[in-house]
Amino acid sequence: MIAFGGNALLRSGQKGTYSEQLANVEDTCKQLWPLIEQGWHIVIGHGNGPQVGNGLLRHDAGEKLCGLPAMPMDFCGSETQGSIAYMIETGMERVLRRHGCDRHVVSLVTRVEVGADDPKFSNPTKPVGPYYSKEEADRLASESGASFREDPKGNGWRKVVASPVPLKINNIDIVTELAAKGHIVVTVGGGGIPVIDTPEGHKGVEAVIDKDLASALCANQIGADAFYILTDVPKVYINFRQPDQKALDTITVAQAREYLAQGQFTEGSMAPKVRAGILFVENGGTECIITEAGRLGDPACGTRIIK
Amino acid sequence: MIAFGGNALLRSGQKGTYSEQLANVEDTCKQLWPLIEQGWHIVIGHGNGPQVGNGLLRHDAGEKLCGLPAMPMDFCGSETQGSIAYMIETGMERVLRRHGCDRHVVSLVTRVEVGADDPKFSNPTKPVGPYYSKEEADRLASESGASFREDPKGNGWRKVVASPVPLKINNIDIVTELAAKGHIVVTVGGGGIPVIDTPEGHKGVEAVIDKDLASALCANQIGADAFYILTDVPKVYINFRQPDQKALDTITVAQAREYLAQGQFTEGSMAPKVRAGILFVENGGTECIITEAGRLGDPACGTRIIK
Repeated sequence: MIAFGGNALLRSGQKGTYSEQLANVEDTCKQLWPLIEQGWHIVIGHGNGPQVGNGLLRHDAGEKLCGLPAMPMDFCGSETQGSIAYMIETGMERVLRRHGCDRHVVSLVTRVEVGADDPKFSNPTKPVGPYYSKEEADRLASESGASFREDPKGNGWRKVVASPVPLKINNIDIVTELAAKGHIVVTVGGGGIPVIDTPEGHKGVEAVIDKDLASALCANQIGADAFYILTDVPKVYINFRQPDQKALDTITVAQAREYLAQGQFTEGSMAPKVRAGILFVENGGTECIITEAGRLGDPACGTRIIK
Repeated sequence: MIAFGGNALLRSGQKGTYSEQLANVEDTCKQLWPLIEQGWHIVIGHGNGPQVGNGLLRHDAGEKLCGLPAMPMDFCGSETQGSIAYMIETGMERVLRRHGCDRHVVSLVTRVEVGADDPKFSNPTKPVGPYYSKEEADRLASESGASFREDPKGNGWRKVVASPVPLKINNIDIVTELAAKGHIVVTVGGGGIPVIDTPEGHKGVEAVIDKDLASALCANQIGADAFYILTDVPKVYINFRQPDQKALDTITVAQAREYLAQGQFTEGSMAPKVRAGILFVENGGTECIITEAGRLGDPACGTRIIK
């Protein structure tokens, strides 16, 4: 199981044009080649932060300029599953063809169940979508029941959504079967489309599932031998950017917990990756490797979290 | 194989809100139940006309209001594959659960290969996306190489794209395998994301693949026993809306061709459906049934095209 961020596709400082995103995704796919060449069965989970952010802005703009209904976040997330998977299939196929490899890339639209009673829903904190004036935010809040918060930098008000814990990945057995046949499977895009279970069926909710947590759950459920979380540094560090900065080679779950408790890892960046690694190993996984894509294939790459 | 239009999800006269589209899709899924109950293995192809139209407008609005790059049509098509599949999964699951049926619904992002040398590319005719002034259209044409035409009703200039013939459906073997296991498979959304083959790999193109033709190709390649094309009339008619209007029960490919040559069927409406039916039967299919969704399950429903 390999998880990579939406930032691997749309880099900060870029406008996010189609050709930029395609070039980025192909770069990332090239870096996965050593694992493909070694014969691993591969399932890819990916983020969608920048892409769903742009989607929400486009929906807002479409409402303002053309009167088209702005769709909720679960819908926008499903759109990014389609478009990011399409770009991954395109980029990965180019890499496979260059190496004369005939493995298929197959992408599933994936809903992920979260708990309707997840405590995160009573305190949403993740800001998403466009900035509004206080008046607009109040109106939208009363119309939709969504929560809005003032941006600390004074840019206006933004919707805030919860980041609930992923509980169940739809069609996980199909992911397992397809991967076992050697297909490269793309799933849990953006952490999955968040849904809650109701007596009538699953119902979409406006929320963001952490893509590393969703990928960890996926890794456990498919029985992955290894779980790679790709980031932009070669290893996990303690005392990061301090004179006594130290790269970690292998740490146990207990050590990882201890470092987390010390606040060694940045929230919103390395901390959720380390938590996802812990989750994978605690639920039966052998090892989680956090590294940068360019190091894949090197047996000494990254930081390993083991039992 | 069942093909239904994007209009089955977003009906004319509606604004296309999320709740409207979800209600429409659930209605359509309810109407498929008789076939599911009879134990058929089912693959669903769907259109995306109204949805990709709205997507193109949102991308244009996002560029104008927020400076976000407007993505090309293949990208917008991939977005609709994600979002429409998500709505079909949601609606179908509600229907299945109500009947205590535990079949899975699984949706694949699907690229469909068209010929780079398809003659349709030299004469694109299908208008898509927003209306522009002549100056804007000229600028966009020189920037992107796309073609623009003046709207005959005087609303401005619109991009026109080709509607090439679908040649090859990506991952068709996986569709066949999943369907054979009893999963309800959603594929070739919007006719598929159009791509052309190049030495480096498949490359997206701005085009619209007719969803009935793509579904016919899919039906042939999965070895479908029957190919249903859903529409908003119970049967195909000759002398449609004339005093001597006549519903057709069963017609041969030769009869269908003859009626087409007589101009009995409206272009952009019934004619492409009849052509898709002919294609399916000529390529080895047993029968194509054109009917409205509400009649499914009735053995006498619709118009059958046979060899």
